[in-house]
Amino acid sequence: MYRIAIPKGSLLNDSKAFLEKSGISFEWSDRKLLFETNVKDTQVLIVRPKDVAVYVEKGAADIGIVGSDVLEEHRYKTVTLRDLDYGHCTMVVAVPKDSKIKNLSSIPDYCKVATKFPNLARKFFGEQGIPIEIIELYGSIEIAPLTDLSEIIVDLVGTGKTLKENGLTQIETISRHSARLIANRVSWQLYHDRIMNFLNI
Amino acid sequence: MYRIAIPKGSLLNDSKAFLEKSGISFEWSDRKLLFETNVKDTQVLIVRPKDVAVYVEKGAADIGIVGSDVLEEHRYKTVTLRDLDYGHCTMVVAVPKDSKIKNLSSIPDYCKVATKFPNLARKFFGEQGIPIEIIELYGSIEIAPLTDLSEIIVDLVGTGKTLKENGLTQIETISRHSARLIANRVSWQLYHDRIMNFLNI
Repeated sequence: MYRIAIPKGSLLNDSKAFLEKSGISFEWSDRKLLFETNVKDTQVLIVRPKDVAVYVEKGAADIGIVGSDVLEEHRYKTVTLRDLDYGHCTMVVAVPKDSKIKNLSSIPDYCKVATKFPNLARKFFGEQGIPIEIIELYGSIEIAPLTDLSEIIVDLVGTGKTLKENGLTQIETISRHSARLIANRVSWQLYHDRIMNFLNI
Repeated sequence: MYRIAIPKGSLLNDSKAFLEKSGISFEWSDRKLLFETNVKDTQVLIVRPKDVAVYVEKGAADIGIVGSDVLEEHRYKTVTLRDLDYGHCTMVVAVPKDSKIKNLSSIPDYCKVATKFPNLARKFFGEQGIPIEIIELYGSIEIAPLTDLSEIIVDLVGTGKTLKENGLTQIETISRHSARLIANRVSWQLYHDRIMNFLNI
């Protein structure tokens, strides 16, 4: 059995399209997570983005598609094969529009930073020499400054619409991200030809 | 400003009903996360379950409602005021129906256990003296044994429907859970009378 894990959420549709271009299709149903495909002995698994990387690392999926933000935050033991050039977004530092913080140099020491990416945020502010307090959240980061949970947020931004709707403004870009094709280390040896064919779409 | 955080997801409707019984109502909209209420200077914030505990711990919400599963997994520095007696569910150990594992004593050493609750799972198997490997996932735990990611899962079960639909069967109950009313430690001192009134519904 050869298994491909793709992520729920914003990368799902582009990932299905990518598989179709590679000759792999399946009958979609939102009640299911595991799908047989038109290709013999090949399954597609749809799980949360972070879980894609876990399935591939542990070998329960041979290859997977996941955002580079997830890969950089957690450093899974997988092989990154290719930048798929979709799902482009940016990790940014943002503050309320009326904040006294206008740029990195006006951030006071031990400022509170809410984020879903504590490792990336800690690394960024560490490199800048700015001491901060990280507050890790699991969703709706944009609400944190409105409730005084934090003065700053670090979050992934696609169009910037969510920031705008919540009265937030970007003061710095940390990094750019997009979807990556990853492989399990052992599968990359075992199924090398098969994966190489898959890459040559 | 007095702020109450309640969780998205399975506890949301019962939590809204609980607030209404306590005399706090607001105009619901699924586009918003922060609501003014009929009570002066009182807001309701709707965030993910784990984030409720973070908001209350950090004082961005004075009180909150969250499942005891979340509180026991992460041990936040909050005051637990009351068992709200809704959102009842059970943390269980489950395996595929056709598994050779029929009970705790037939679990082989270093068996893989997929869960969203690594701390609770580690504690439970540690107390039983069963060495296991934890695989932390963020959703859809029930798919892990179907893909050989793990032999066992530890997960929260309400009706047991999801287990059944995925060919899984419960072999052990770890703990029982329900919604809890929690308070920030400082708010509990500052707004003691207000919170006490709230408790005497």
